[in-house]
Amino acid sequence: MNTTVWMNQLSWVDYQQRIRIEHPPVLLPVGALEQHGPHLPLGTDGLLAAAVAADTAARVGGLVAPTLSYGYKSQPKCGGGQHFCGTTSVDAATLIGQVRDAVREFARHGVDKLVIVNGHYENQWFLIEGIDLGLRDAKAADPACALQVMRLEYWDFMTPETLGHVFPDGFPGFALEHAAVLETSMMLHHHPGLVRMDLLPNDGPADFPPYDMYPSRPDWVPPSGVLSSAKGADAVKGQLLSDEVARRMAEAITTGFTRP
Amino acid sequence: MNTTVWMNQLSWVDYQQRIRIEHPPVLLPVGALEQHGPHLPLGTDGLLAAAVAADTAARVGGLVAPTLSYGYKSQPKCGGGQHFCGTTSVDAATLIGQVRDAVREFARHGVDKLVIVNGHYENQWFLIEGIDLGLRDAKAADPACALQVMRLEYWDFMTPETLGHVFPDGFPGFALEHAAVLETSMMLHHHPGLVRMDLLPNDGPADFPPYDMYPSRPDWVPPSGVLSSAKGADAVKGQLLSDEVARRMAEAITTGFTRP
Amino acid sequence: MNTTVWMNQLSWVDYQQRIRIEHPPVLLPVGALEQHGPHLPLGTDGLLAAAVAADTAARVGGLVAPTLSYGYKSQPKCGGGQHFCGTTSVDAATLIGQVRDAVREFARHGVDKLVIVNGHYENQWFLIEGIDLGLRDAKAADPACALQVMRLEYWDFMTPETLGHVFPDGFPGFALEHAAVLETSMMLHHHPGLVRMDLLPNDGPADFPPYDMYPSRPDWVPPSGVLSSAKGADAVKGQLLSDEVARRMAEAITTGFTRP
Amino acid sequence: MNTTVWMNQLSWVDYQQRIRIEHPPVLLPVGALEQHGPHLPLGTDGLLAAAVAADTAARVGGLVAPTLSYGYKSQPKCGGGQHFCGTTSVDAATLIGQVRDAVREFARHGVDKLVIVNGHYENQWFLIEGIDLGLRDAKAADPACALQVMRLEYWDFMTPETLGHVFPDGFPGFALEHAAVLETSMMLHHHPGLVRMDLLPNDGPADFPPYDMYPSRPDWVPPSGVLSSAKGADAVKGQLLSDEVARRMAEAITTGFTRP
Amino acid sequence: MNTTVWMNQLSWVDYQQRIRIEHPPVLLPVGALEQHGPHLPLGTDGLLAAAVAADTAARVGGLVAPTLSYGYKSQPKCGGGQHFCGTTSVDAATLIGQVRDAVREFARHGVDKLVIVNGHYENQWFLIEGIDLGLRDAKAADPACALQVMRLEYWDFMTPETLGHVFPDGFPGFALEHAAVLETSMMLHHHPGLVRMDLLPNDGPADFPPYDMYPSRPDWVPPSGVLSSAKGADAVKGQLLSDEVARRMAEAITTGFTRP
Amino acid sequence: MNTTVWMNQLSWVDYQQRIRIEHPPVLLPVGALEQHGPHLPLGTDGLLAAAVAADTAARVGGLVAPTLSYGYKSQPKCGGGQHFCGTTSVDAATLIGQVRDAVREFARHGVDKLVIVNGHYENQWFLIEGIDLGLRDAKAADPACALQVMRLEYWDFMTPETLGHVFPDGFPGFALEHAAVLETSMMLHHHPGLVRMDLLPNDGPADFPPYDMYPSRPDWVPPSGVLSSAKGADAVKGQLLSDEVARRMAEAITTGFTRP
Repeated sequence: MNTTVWMNQLSWVDYQQRIRIEHPPVLLPVGALEQHGPHLPLGTDGLLAAAVAADTAARVGGLVAPTLSYGYKSQPKCGGGQHFCGTTSVDAATLIGQVRDAVREFARHGVDKLVIVNGHYENQWFLIEGIDLGLRDAKAADPACALQVMRLEYWDFMTPETLGHVFPDGFPGFALEHAAVLETSMMLHHHPGLVRMDLLPNDGPADFPPYDMYPSRPDWVPPSGVLSSAKGADAVKGQLLSDEVARRMAEAITTGFTRP
Repeated sequence: MNTTVWMNQLSWVDYQQRIRIEHPPVLLPVGALEQHGPHLPLGTDGLLAAAVAADTAARVGGLVAPTLSYGYKSQPKCGGGQHFCGTTSVDAATLIGQVRDAVREFARHGVDKLVIVNGHYENQWFLIEGIDLGLRDAKAADPACALQVMRLEYWDFMTPETLGHVFPDGFPGFALEHAAVLETSMMLHHHPGLVRMDLLPNDGPADFPPYDMYPSRPDWVPPSGVLSSAKGADAVKGQLLSDEVARRMAEAITTGFTRP
Repeated sequence: MNTTVWMNQLSWVDYQQRIRIEHPPVLLPVGALEQHGPHLPLGTDGLLAAAVAADTAARVGGLVAPTLSYGYKSQPKCGGGQHFCGTTSVDAATLIGQVRDAVREFARHGVDKLVIVNGHYENQWFLIEGIDLGLRDAKAADPACALQVMRLEYWDFMTPETLGHVFPDGFPGFALEHAAVLETSMMLHHHPGLVRMDLLPNDGPADFPPYDMYPSRPDWVPPSGVLSSAKGADAVKGQLLSDEVARRMAEAITTGFTRP
Repeated sequence: MNTTVWMNQLSWVDYQQRIRIEHPPVLLPVGALEQHGPHLPLGTDGLLAAAVAADTAARVGGLVAPTLSYGYKSQPKCGGGQHFCGTTSVDAATLIGQVRDAVREFARHGVDKLVIVNGHYENQWFLIEGIDLGLRDAKAADPACALQVMRLEYWDFMTPETLGHVFPDGFPGFALEHAAVLETSMMLHHHPGLVRMDLLPNDGPADFPPYDMYPSRPDWVPPSGVLSSAKGADAVKGQLLSDEVARRMAEAITTGFTRP
Repeated sequence: MNTTVWMNQLSWVDYQQRIRIEHPPVLLPVGALEQHGPHLPLGTDGLLAAAVAADTAARVGGLVAPTLSYGYKSQPKCGGGQHFCGTTSVDAATLIGQVRDAVREFARHGVDKLVIVNGHYENQWFLIEGIDLGLRDAKAADPACALQVMRLEYWDFMTPETLGHVFPDGFPGFALEHAAVLETSMMLHHHPGLVRMDLLPNDGPADFPPYDMYPSRPDWVPPSGVLSSAKGADAVKGQLLSDEVARRMAEAITTGFTRP
Repeated sequence: MNTTVWMNQLSWVDYQQRIRIEHPPVLLPVGALEQHGPHLPLGTDGLLAAAVAADTAARVGGLVAPTLSYGYKSQPKCGGGQHFCGTTSVDAATLIGQVRDAVREFARHGVDKLVIVNGHYENQWFLIEGIDLGLRDAKAADPACALQVMRLEYWDFMTPETLGHVFPDGFPGFALEHAAVLETSMMLHHHPGLVRMDLLPNDGPADFPPYDMYPSRPDWVPPSGVLSSAKGADAVKGQLLSDEVARRMAEAITTGFTRP
């Protein structure tokens, strides 16, 4: 039997057999098409979400559904904002609908463990709404629906210890980690050919006030789109982070779906 | 002329005159109807958002529009979750629509400074979408539309210094601050009659895994709904916090609307 | 136990206990932010809906949920129209969604008697749609859902006798009663500090053709926004009207929820 | 040239010529598929709206667009309610969308006078929303859009004098006029073959409380669906009413589209 | 009892009796208001869908619901495109909603056989979505819902033999059959007074590339709107086609609703 | 400079430079996650749409945006239907929204040539609606918007000559070509490792009546999901087809965007 983790490479016959016999978790990566400075590609968020989903799936016998490649609109403080050319985003209703439909469909397949792996900070709350509405639909269609959904942002599985290794001068927090050390290191590990370390900008750290303005203020954001420097990123750190994330996500999946 | 900060207490004639002559900021508080433990009322988030909005408006000659009293669905990690009786929430589309309409209408009035004061963590991203769509509508209706919108969560205006005073043993962070020291202190300052310090539960701090589950797990949340203890809350701290928030929000409004 | 009628002042524990033990009706006032001439405040409709809801709740042991303060778009013949500065309205989808969500949430709480108290004529049909969709959702989620909803416009509880007292020269009908004798009298009773009898315009009665035009015609509407004169309004009449409305609404709630 | 009033019988070439040269008003009838007692057909509201639209169009050189045959959900007090078999209604969003699209399309054609002729009481507010959103779209697409829309309920063009003739014992008001004297008389005039005077029920007048209940109470409504008796209806009255309505609607169209 | 096939001419009492006793199929014609060259009227698609629906209903004891007269936006390759004056179309959401509501309502009536008779090519996929969502609603409301829906485009019931008769030089295929031989012949049979054979354009056949462009290219389409010539159309062919379609649709209804 | 065709592998800086200097066409592949028999993977439609898009882009200096991997609901006659496990589809509103947002975003980037490459038959009409609404948005935001969109189904670029080679016994038409010779050959060319020729079912050709039924009839569809046999498929044919499609799509892009 086909042992790939990639659901779209399975025939429906193989997929059905695995769902019915193995009851695997299905992981759905959600990314974005968003500027990530001059050194990282527009697809970074989706590529990393898919990479950690695949590593995790390999550990737990799971499957990875095709990535949702377009994310919610970029915000200045976490992704630089919508004024960058190349950032290609969706409205809330679209992302909510996409997740709602996916939840309803996986429930119909008989999947009982769906894991939504978010790689773009701005997506989080629309994923939550999509899951809630999808489960509402699924229960209306079948009150006995057994599907449980886990939603996670993959970086939340990095431990303080590992972050301490990666940032020997102290981890400055996730707030400005856009196209910075964490993402750059992980891309160097998973997709080294797509990283241009020679183009690393020296921008940042950006300094934001405790409020947001709309229309957004491009001058709040470094012209490169990088919110803090990726200096110090390397593939070894990327592997360390990726391995930890995959290991701990696998653990969460193994333990988290058992109702207490 | 009527000098109240409450927009709904002004006649349209007085409102129009103030908008045309003084160009005041209009503050729109957004709350929730959500469990806040046995010691705080369901309306806490809206009451506090309105209170800090009013204090701020008094400092900058602003107006406060009627509070949006129903917020987005409560999540276990920030508000306890939707399984509590009394929590009365709206779907994403409703909150987005409410804000979109408000933005479009204030633009029509000729308001140029709208401040959305959020008092319920779960609302944030739906406010963002509502503002974005509202400005899209407003620009389509009038390309010369001059409205700028500021969005803020009021607690982001508390300084580390003040939080240090309030938490002499160290500020544990905002994550579990639901119905805890900050909100309880501020309610003791603004609405002492609505706080039952005798019913303070001893729950928490809650301990959550780095992922979320749907349907949510009620057993993750203390039965009281309180995520960390409100012990140590008092009205003096509430006043300290409220004053700082109002003062710094006023400053933000004064400086933030000037395009750099 | 907390005996307030205001739901947002109750803790969830108190609310739950009352719902489970007393099965009280929950009243949801719906208003508008709409011009009401130079003598009444923009919030008149919500303030009056909340006031009669509270008086009624006090008589039947009910609770009053937070007012929906933004109503459907003002129409020239009943509220003067959307061209007035200060009138701040929502699209149909928003109001429908807000009511739909509220119905679904109160059904989840186990409320069996929900009373929607409308204070803004233009809201009526969108409330109807919101209730219908909310009950559709609630039945899909739980076929045994026992929630019944009563919807009313509070002025329909005024008797011809009382209207005869209030209008000694004959009641001209509700059609032009915007910011006129009824609303002004009731505001003088409930919120005398918000009424400026010295600014009473002498406009009206407005005279409308038997059709409507879009875009609306501002010249159809007196510049003050008042459709007929509020002359003769006083607080005694306001009390008479308010008391009758509350008494008869209480009666309706007591008898109306018993299935025949 | 084809001189029919029915737009759907014109070729696009003839239609275009008439729009460009004559600038005729276009009338859009809106009805319902709704029980009208045992003596009138389900399509009564659409048939009458189309009939008065055609009579009016003939007087003013107008065109009649195809009727919207499905109306908003029937309510007990005005149409008997949704529990009747045969009543086939649409949700608010559908009717709003249908009207919105029509407004946008007629604006694109260069129509400058659109008249929405409502024959089903429950439709009114959703027509209003559809017109408002359609004009919003049309202005966004073309700020110079010259389309004006008139909306009317045809019965509002009956004068007290004529109603006095029709009801020699006094006109009881429009409230219960569902499948009663007015509609039955007009159907006898326009579609005598669809009226079964031998089946006239003796029901009513229905007596409703000053509130509405949801789910609706079928026992409030006479089993026949008729809210007050159609006794006394005849074709002569129908002609009298129809002629007056058409004459006065024609007058309204002739004078109402001139901006004052 | 009233034996008409037209549902809107039945009283609800007669309709209910037929539904309960005879379980007739209900046919819902869906058309468009769309240019059909200088020789055919704008309403052609709805008129023909209703005509074949009525002929079919007469054969199987069915009922015909009021036509949905406004169809999805015309496309250059099948209907000429939206740039023609007179073409009056709806957005996808509107058509989907209209069908969704109809499905839900007929399910409520107890109809078990609904046939959606499409007369406008562009409608097809939105009808599919409307049916799917309507059945989803109907099942959520009543898991025992027995309604089955048949959807068809009427021209798919023409046999190669008959098309061979109609096109002695060989049937060129349905692709360009807009306002051409088939529709013109059928209109000559059903509505001869609405056809202007003297205005038959000599356009076409249109020649399209294997892709579509948006905004559409008016110069791809003959100025008359006719995609291929209607020369050779006559009423005899129209009767032949109509009879075959009605006979075979009747057969499909008789056999198609029996679950295999 | 990065010369990849894959947009998500470009940094925003490189992307912006290419858009501004080269004005390349941007190709957006749209697929589905849908059963394709036991021998082809679930992701076939998206994989092939992306493959031909990439080949085409390489010929015209274009870019390929991330594939929309989830398509509209599978229908029995073209994709087997929604009853297959593994088929994971979206509602119309979701797909429409996704395309609408993409059109709006590429317009904002300054893209002037967008090519939507459809690989799943069921998607077509929802892509059309998404493009129409996206252009409506883009024009409202910027009346000078220069974006043109081309939409195509890639198989329409296969010539009768080539199909004659591929089907020596005569091309049976596209109707049943689901998971059959064309798709299997192209997958053998582009993704040979994902094809299991040893599992080729012998099903079909399926025989469908000239109507559709809802809920769909699983017994109409061969249990394998294959509508006609893939016997005779090979990689050489796949290359022949793919090359022709890419060559002719490149030609269409080169010539099609020039306004005549």
